[in-house]
Amino acid sequence: MESLNIDFEKAGGLVPAIIQDHHNGDVLMLGFMNSVSLAETQRSGEVVFFSRSRNKLWKKGESSGHVLKVREVRVDCDADALLVRVEAVGPGVCHEGYRSCFFRSLASDGAAEIVEERTFAPESVYGAQQQEKKA
Amino acid sequence: MESLNIDFEKAGGLVPAIIQDHHNGDVLMLGFMNSVSLAETQRSGEVVFFSRSRNKLWKKGESSGHVLKVREVRVDCDADALLVRVEAVGPGVCHEGYRSCFFRSLASDGAAEIVEERTFAPESVYGAQQQEKKA
Repeated sequence: MESLNIDFEKAGGLVPAIIQDHHNGDVLMLGFMNSVSLAETQRSGEVVFFSRSRNKLWKKGESSGHVLKVREVRVDCDADALLVRVEAVGPGVCHEGYRSCFFRSLASDGAAEIVEERTFAPESVYGAQQQEKKA
Repeated sequence: MESLNIDFEKAGGLVPAIIQDHHNGDVLMLGFMNSVSLAETQRSGEVVFFSRSRNKLWKKGESSGHVLKVREVRVDCDADALLVRVEAVGPGVCHEGYRSCFFRSLASDGAAEIVEERTFAPESVYGAQQQEKKA
């Protein structure tokens, strides 16, 4: 057991945090965390990102109720990326109505094809503003 | 089907690229790509990152032979993160000798515990310089 300093400085105070479904291994989304959001994630047991576009902490699920309950936090060899294994509450994490934000496959010519089914109607959850758009 | 522009500008020309084992869903590592490395990844069918520390393209496996064969590239809702599903050649992707770079679990007090088994001796693959250290 070692005590570890996460390398927040490599990318301006933020590290990427991969969100993975604890049950089936699906990658649900990627967000960023600063030291405060990581501490709050660990303290509360629910994922809190740092929103780059809004420049503030962003509790995932604050408006939708689709919170991410933390089952395990992993850190990579260089301590500059996090893998957060979660129990995702609700039908999906994506503000566009999908279980995962990675619902499109990208061909080599740049064409993107939707390869997942919608699991909820985003307007019924987020309203017109889509307040919880990914940062 | 839509043609998609990846948003490289949000983070200075780079997007995070999550590498996931196509067979079992394990997250193996996270790297960064610029537009050239993404194009080269798609052209060659093997993962090419952009190394932030060396400031140049970095073909994963160039010294170790542990290349990552691309099975699918996915893009997220905001087009600012990639999920690359791969067939990983060799016993592991991590320069420290593990199958995944995320071999440590992080407790809330900052203690990191190794939770995976080593799958190869890194010095036998990388030599003393560890040339292929993650960027």
